[in-house]
Amino acid sequence: MFMRIDHVAIACHDLEEKIALFERIFELTVVAREINEEQGVKEAMLHVVDGDGGGSYIQLLEPLSPDTPVGKFLAKRGEGVHHVAFGVPDVTEAMGEIGGRGVRLLDEKPRHGSMGSSIAFLHPKDVGGMLTELVQARPTDQGHNH
Amino acid sequence: MFMRIDHVAIACHDLEEKIALFERIFELTVVAREINEEQGVKEAMLHVVDGDGGGSYIQLLEPLSPDTPVGKFLAKRGEGVHHVAFGVPDVTEAMGEIGGRGVRLLDEKPRHGSMGSSIAFLHPKDVGGMLTELVQARPTDQGHNH
Repeated sequence: MFMRIDHVAIACHDLEEKIALFERIFELTVVAREINEEQGVKEAMLHVVDGDGGGSYIQLLEPLSPDTPVGKFLAKRGEGVHHVAFGVPDVTEAMGEIGGRGVRLLDEKPRHGSMGSSIAFLHPKDVGGMLTELVQARPTDQGHNH
Repeated sequence: MFMRIDHVAIACHDLEEKIALFERIFELTVVAREINEEQGVKEAMLHVVDGDGGGSYIQLLEPLSPDTPVGKFLAKRGEGVHHVAFGVPDVTEAMGEIGGRGVRLLDEKPRHGSMGSSIAFLHPKDVGGMLTELVQARPTDQGHNH
């Protein structure tokens, strides 16, 4: 079912500051920046590695305002891991399979994720307390990431 | 520097219950179980994928007692992501490089990690609030994981 750990997402107060930090201490490179109004975040993807199942990234998330999900997360927990995303071949199929096993889906249908992906979130309480995202890469990227 | 996202570690109250959950909902398989007295945890590695840079896993951690680091984490935050680990070719070298950039190391020298690996932790406050582990796989596993 899972083809890769797609990304680990970190909530932060200042995206540019954290990009500079991660580039400097871990020698990572930003491969995409995006503003996702729907999710209320400004984000960057830092490339870790490519594999047969697609790429792995660190995602940095800065909330667009305090009353967004990531803004509320920061106010409550401070900076740190916000969610973890796993690559799947087909997000709709994976939602059906995992949902059919009693895991609550936070999305009724896939929505727009980073770099043209289709994504859906699972309820953290049904998955060991980890906010979990399923990611289907943009079709043209499937299997051509390295 | 980073060859892979080695694992995402989840702190839990009941290891066997969570293993059964993750096997059932995500079709994952346990490839190693271990008791690490030094770190005060009972743990399991669930295999996600192999790549040129080594394997990626979900690690489940149950504290051996409430007064261990993971026991205290659970009491304070509840179940969820405890740390994230990145694979490096040489953990001592990576500690030197990252430490030289002003990141505090929680370990003075590498210690024993899962499946015969050598590991070291970085101070979360210096790394965006994410407790971060560096992992050098057991020598015989390097590049032979798939």
